[in-house]
Amino acid sequence: METAIERFKKVRAQTEQLVRPLKPEDYAAQPILDVSPPKWKLVHTTCFFETFLLEPHLQGYPLFDQRFSFLFYSYYYYKGQRVARDQRGAITRPTVEEVLAYRSHVNEHIERLLHHGRNEELSALLEIGINHEQQHQELLVYDMKYILGHQPFPEAYGPHFLTQEDPSPLHWLEYTEGVYGIGHHGDGFSYDNEHPRHKVYVPRFEIASRPVINEEWLAFMADGGYSKFSLWHDEAWQHIQAQGWQAPLYWQEQDGQWLSYDMDGLQPINPKKPVQHISFYEAFAFAEWAGYALPTEFQWELASGKFPYGQVWEWTYSAYHPYPGYAKAEGALGEYNGKFMINQMVLRGASVATAQGHSRATYRNFFPAAARWMFSGLRLVKNSG
Amino acid sequence: METAIERFKKVRAQTEQLVRPLKPEDYAAQPILDVSPPKWKLVHTTCFFETFLLEPHLQGYPLFDQRFSFLFYSYYYYKGQRVARDQRGAITRPTVEEVLAYRSHVNEHIERLLHHGRNEELSALLEIGINHEQQHQELLVYDMKYILGHQPFPEAYGPHFLTQEDPSPLHWLEYTEGVYGIGHHGDGFSYDNEHPRHKVYVPRFEIASRPVINEEWLAFMADGGYSKFSLWHDEAWQHIQAQGWQAPLYWQEQDGQWLSYDMDGLQPINPKKPVQHISFYEAFAFAEWAGYALPTEFQWELASGKFPYGQVWEWTYSAYHPYPGYAKAEGALGEYNGKFMINQMVLRGASVATAQGHSRATYRNFFPAAARWMFSGLRLVKNSG
Amino acid sequence: METAIERFKKVRAQTEQLVRPLKPEDYAAQPILDVSPPKWKLVHTTCFFETFLLEPHLQGYPLFDQRFSFLFYSYYYYKGQRVARDQRGAITRPTVEEVLAYRSHVNEHIERLLHHGRNEELSALLEIGINHEQQHQELLVYDMKYILGHQPFPEAYGPHFLTQEDPSPLHWLEYTEGVYGIGHHGDGFSYDNEHPRHKVYVPRFEIASRPVINEEWLAFMADGGYSKFSLWHDEAWQHIQAQGWQAPLYWQEQDGQWLSYDMDGLQPINPKKPVQHISFYEAFAFAEWAGYALPTEFQWELASGKFPYGQVWEWTYSAYHPYPGYAKAEGALGEYNGKFMINQMVLRGASVATAQGHSRATYRNFFPAAARWMFSGLRLVKNSG
Amino acid sequence: METAIERFKKVRAQTEQLVRPLKPEDYAAQPILDVSPPKWKLVHTTCFFETFLLEPHLQGYPLFDQRFSFLFYSYYYYKGQRVARDQRGAITRPTVEEVLAYRSHVNEHIERLLHHGRNEELSALLEIGINHEQQHQELLVYDMKYILGHQPFPEAYGPHFLTQEDPSPLHWLEYTEGVYGIGHHGDGFSYDNEHPRHKVYVPRFEIASRPVINEEWLAFMADGGYSKFSLWHDEAWQHIQAQGWQAPLYWQEQDGQWLSYDMDGLQPINPKKPVQHISFYEAFAFAEWAGYALPTEFQWELASGKFPYGQVWEWTYSAYHPYPGYAKAEGALGEYNGKFMINQMVLRGASVATAQGHSRATYRNFFPAAARWMFSGLRLVKNSG
Repeated sequence: METAIERFKKVRAQTEQLVRPLKPEDYAAQPILDVSPPKWKLVHTTCFFETFLLEPHLQGYPLFDQRFSFLFYSYYYYKGQRVARDQRGAITRPTVEEVLAYRSHVNEHIERLLHHGRNEELSALLEIGINHEQQHQELLVYDMKYILGHQPFPEAYGPHFLTQEDPSPLHWLEYTEGVYGIGHHGDGFSYDNEHPRHKVYVPRFEIASRPVINEEWLAFMADGGYSKFSLWHDEAWQHIQAQGWQAPLYWQEQDGQWLSYDMDGLQPINPKKPVQHISFYEAFAFAEWAGYALPTEFQWELASGKFPYGQVWEWTYSAYHPYPGYAKAEGALGEYNGKFMINQMVLRGASVATAQGHSRATYRNFFPAAARWMFSGLRLVKNSG
Repeated sequence: METAIERFKKVRAQTEQLVRPLKPEDYAAQPILDVSPPKWKLVHTTCFFETFLLEPHLQGYPLFDQRFSFLFYSYYYYKGQRVARDQRGAITRPTVEEVLAYRSHVNEHIERLLHHGRNEELSALLEIGINHEQQHQELLVYDMKYILGHQPFPEAYGPHFLTQEDPSPLHWLEYTEGVYGIGHHGDGFSYDNEHPRHKVYVPRFEIASRPVINEEWLAFMADGGYSKFSLWHDEAWQHIQAQGWQAPLYWQEQDGQWLSYDMDGLQPINPKKPVQHISFYEAFAFAEWAGYALPTEFQWELASGKFPYGQVWEWTYSAYHPYPGYAKAEGALGEYNGKFMINQMVLRGASVATAQGHSRATYRNFFPAAARWMFSGLRLVKNSG
Repeated sequence: METAIERFKKVRAQTEQLVRPLKPEDYAAQPILDVSPPKWKLVHTTCFFETFLLEPHLQGYPLFDQRFSFLFYSYYYYKGQRVARDQRGAITRPTVEEVLAYRSHVNEHIERLLHHGRNEELSALLEIGINHEQQHQELLVYDMKYILGHQPFPEAYGPHFLTQEDPSPLHWLEYTEGVYGIGHHGDGFSYDNEHPRHKVYVPRFEIASRPVINEEWLAFMADGGYSKFSLWHDEAWQHIQAQGWQAPLYWQEQDGQWLSYDMDGLQPINPKKPVQHISFYEAFAFAEWAGYALPTEFQWELASGKFPYGQVWEWTYSAYHPYPGYAKAEGALGEYNGKFMINQMVLRGASVATAQGHSRATYRNFFPAAARWMFSGLRLVKNSG
Repeated sequence: METAIERFKKVRAQTEQLVRPLKPEDYAAQPILDVSPPKWKLVHTTCFFETFLLEPHLQGYPLFDQRFSFLFYSYYYYKGQRVARDQRGAITRPTVEEVLAYRSHVNEHIERLLHHGRNEELSALLEIGINHEQQHQELLVYDMKYILGHQPFPEAYGPHFLTQEDPSPLHWLEYTEGVYGIGHHGDGFSYDNEHPRHKVYVPRFEIASRPVINEEWLAFMADGGYSKFSLWHDEAWQHIQAQGWQAPLYWQEQDGQWLSYDMDGLQPINPKKPVQHISFYEAFAFAEWAGYALPTEFQWELASGKFPYGQVWEWTYSAYHPYPGYAKAEGALGEYNGKFMINQMVLRGASVATAQGHSRATYRNFFPAAARWMFSGLRLVKNSG
């Protein structure tokens, strides 16, 4: 019991730690639709605990302010969509101060609730709430990076969430064909989309020992990778033309040298770091150019025991679809994952912005093929023809 | 000399007084393109003094921070457009605190500059700067009303800038035909668009002694005014269909009663107050329905001596075009008015949000025919056929 | 009586003559919103005669096909808007053949109606119908030019509707100030928007003896006219940036030489012909650059007796607003002109595509400031400051 | 040899037979982006034979008109994109007559080429050209249905391409788990996307003996299927809200009865026919509502031997991705399939509009999840949890 309270408090405090470099003005900005105003995330994660734990389970719970869940939890239709997503940046009230007071209020009552003891249902909800908050912590890092990095005079966030160089030479790990078990098993928390564990036939393949690094990406660019339509999917080609993409997000050329904005400000590209902030479109085109392929999520999961991961999320060439026999949860919790299972691609692994202990080998992250404001990279695979 | 400094200080202090009810989060919001983030206005008006007075005229003036004029003064192309207008809401830095420090810095140096004595050019620039700031004070009121009034749970600003009831019965003021002098003359500040004073032939007309009031607008609505296409201009009709307009901005129906959001919050419609927040499109349709017309700006100017005005800006059926022989100023100041002289309609008078002493009978305010987030109303005229 | 029938038949036959160079496929195209499919115009003008003359005045008139007025006359809301304007290009049925049969049917019955004799109302409606068809004949020329000229391999229409060179040296015609009568008077057909004739005070001015010609426009372009923002209205500047305008419509550069597409195909620019296919935005910028102004419609009307016009419509700096005391007609005919009296600018004169005898010195043509697919040019004026 | 020529002539003649009910005006219409003007398809399929067979292989081949491949084959970037897809409807020239002459010209020269004998490469190209034309024949049917069915007064095409009633009671076909071979093998033509044949582990499942029929869809609608967000994917829900979808495409309610437009005109819904013109979004929501699932393309292929198919294409819950080891062809032919392998879903089977002999059990058709102007339906599956 003690442990659960401690874990809850620690994760909640981490969120508040994360936003410390922000000024009040930063909390409400929504420069693009993908980005949520940081204030929104502070409230949204809190609403989860209020809605699913306190309201039904803590008798006499005094609602802090009914506006909060009305405004910021509307993302789940089950509770009713109220504020259009593209209008979030115009919601200046409640203020950050009120938001932090709301968080304290909920935290105190969760502690009180947990002190009463808890049953299995409560434990499960608490675990989901904590994981939900951790997921949003990572998105919060992406959003803060985007907001600060897109100021006319970009601001540094601080020396955090920076990837490491990987100086090791690339080698290929080989796997033989077979029918393998895929999906989560055993104890520990997992999401419904990692279930049920099921069998998949995987043919022989070799997978790279490390993700693609910046010097490799620079070679792709130097070879005209962004202007050879034959490397790209049709919709990818139209997209990069319309957007004018010539490099990963946050990259810019100055006097013939490529720089990129990172959490610690604008820096020269480090050739040995994994490439970051690329879309699936770009990952695929790079693999085509390199003469290799992107792994399926099954290949990735199978091989993940043999290579260390965790710098960048790695695009796979697997659509984010349900595993055979997948059943989504009842009610509002059922909206969590299943409703996104169309037109999204799976990413595997974890990034430097992933909360500690949040990810695992069976974890299925997912984004649309065009997204690249998250910490995304790629790893190559050789398929035997 | 003393007087000019005092006047400068007073107007500058009024701006800061105006934004006092705001929270830091409110300063950066841009819910629609018409609205500027309040922070933007605080800087923009200050840049004028820095760019046109301090930099060229105060030797050794230490620029506070070059980012300010770069970011917030970009509106004048002469100085270079740098930040897209629809991205202003994403500029969270510099912070409000830094902005206020910038205002103090410029204020102090303007006082220092004026203590050195001043020539005619400096006096003229100061006067323009003060009037420029007053214009933006009024826009700031519109913007704050829009931001606070469009929160999912609207916030009141305070009991300021509220119109008064006008219980007087309507009567008609008659004018005989003639060639009249139109435009500014005599001493006192005026804008270039009020010049040159010139002759205009005006036929006989009668003009209403007061603006249209809410009970008259309710009658128009009750008679189906918003659904009779024959009352509307073609582009107006398409616009109100597309926007779903059924009433002035800020009006909403609750349980069969019409309310409107005002600076002091949501209130029942006061039947005796002048109607406010209507577009030219709506003003014209109302006049058609009533069997009268909108005055030209010449009729209005001519008659303005006989009726008190100042509650709401009054739409005229005059396009905002140059007076015969109009010549715009050289350089960046020349961009002030002339470049807007297409597809805008003239409004005359003043509103409760107009800075004291800022307007006058010859003052030409202007907005696009569809705009209605400003304090706009109408006055009727009878033309003899 | 005889004359009216003959005139009706002549104008109707001219329309059919106009479309003779078209292939069936050309009749349904709508490449931009401004352009109506030619078939639409063939029907639309015919519906006028059916709706306002035959249905109410010819007893026992057998409706040819109720679909026609339903589909193609919907432009007047009074009769009900049925087909979205941007979907006109997808209406492939009824076919051209059916459309021509419909025209014959209505023609025959109009002749029959007129043989019965006619009263004043009928005469007036006939006159409006004929003028309405003539107006659409000119628009039809614009539309056919646009459709054929925007084929990937442009097609020539034929050696028709070509402007003439004007080799005369420019001189200035001077007018003294005064109160002048403006608007239509006397006999002959005129539109409601030319009424009532009224007095206008016009200050002293000088007006050019001929429109601006291509060699003058080339000088404007060579001097960077399209890239100096200070010459342009604010919304004009945004528009030309967004559209990438660098020259009049139909102009293109090939190997350093400017060509333009005209009714007879792609041709080198003729330096002595009046410039054509320019927007109000461009006309104004040119006048700014040249150090002159655009005339008001009053100056133009006053001076029109002294210069020959008729090559291109001439932009004025007058908004298309009602004359004092203007009253629009009752019912559907009232929609003809009044409903467009906002955000449009007046053009005066006539073009080589104007039906013979259709225009006159008091005629008020009008288009939005950005339009330039019609045959539009400009004439300069000198105002005494 | 003889047979190949005969087959070529037959398929080419079928295309011309297909468009016979059209009028010239119908050939150029493009009411929505998905629909190509029929004229475009007549040329596009012909360009294939000219570009890949005649130009490289028939010595002295006289190009009919270089405009054709320039204008209508631009879809393959390899040859250069020249006309924006949304502008196809404005291309009125060349005319239908010229297009048919072009087809005859190419037909004659293909016959001449084939009489010279042919090698394996030529045979393969001919086979692809014929299959390419057959694919477009089916799209042509969709397009003609859309154009004629979306006339303000819809026109019937004729009594062709109508589905049949399926009065058989539904039963379930059971399959045991196993590793199965998937993809094309053996002789006969197949597309690159059906290769390589590979192993897939498929768990136990039961699949419906027939597609879902209209009376079942009506029950879904009657039960509020289109208004229960929990049945829908998130992006599906947003899409149906934005589009206002309440029923399949071509369905309309009249006096409480549901009708649908089909090739033979507007008809009451036939309860025993398979539902048609539904998107993947709708297919998934129906399966959710029914408590079943959509099959994967592997389940479908495996089971296809036991049920007759061919009325409607059947949506699967498989993304259109490459089979393991898939390699696309070199050059322009390589653009055929691979470049669409993102954000599209696989449909299996065939429809009443599919050319005879064109489809097969391993054939992979594909469309975006929102598309429904094609002849698409669904078949249900039961997965064991």
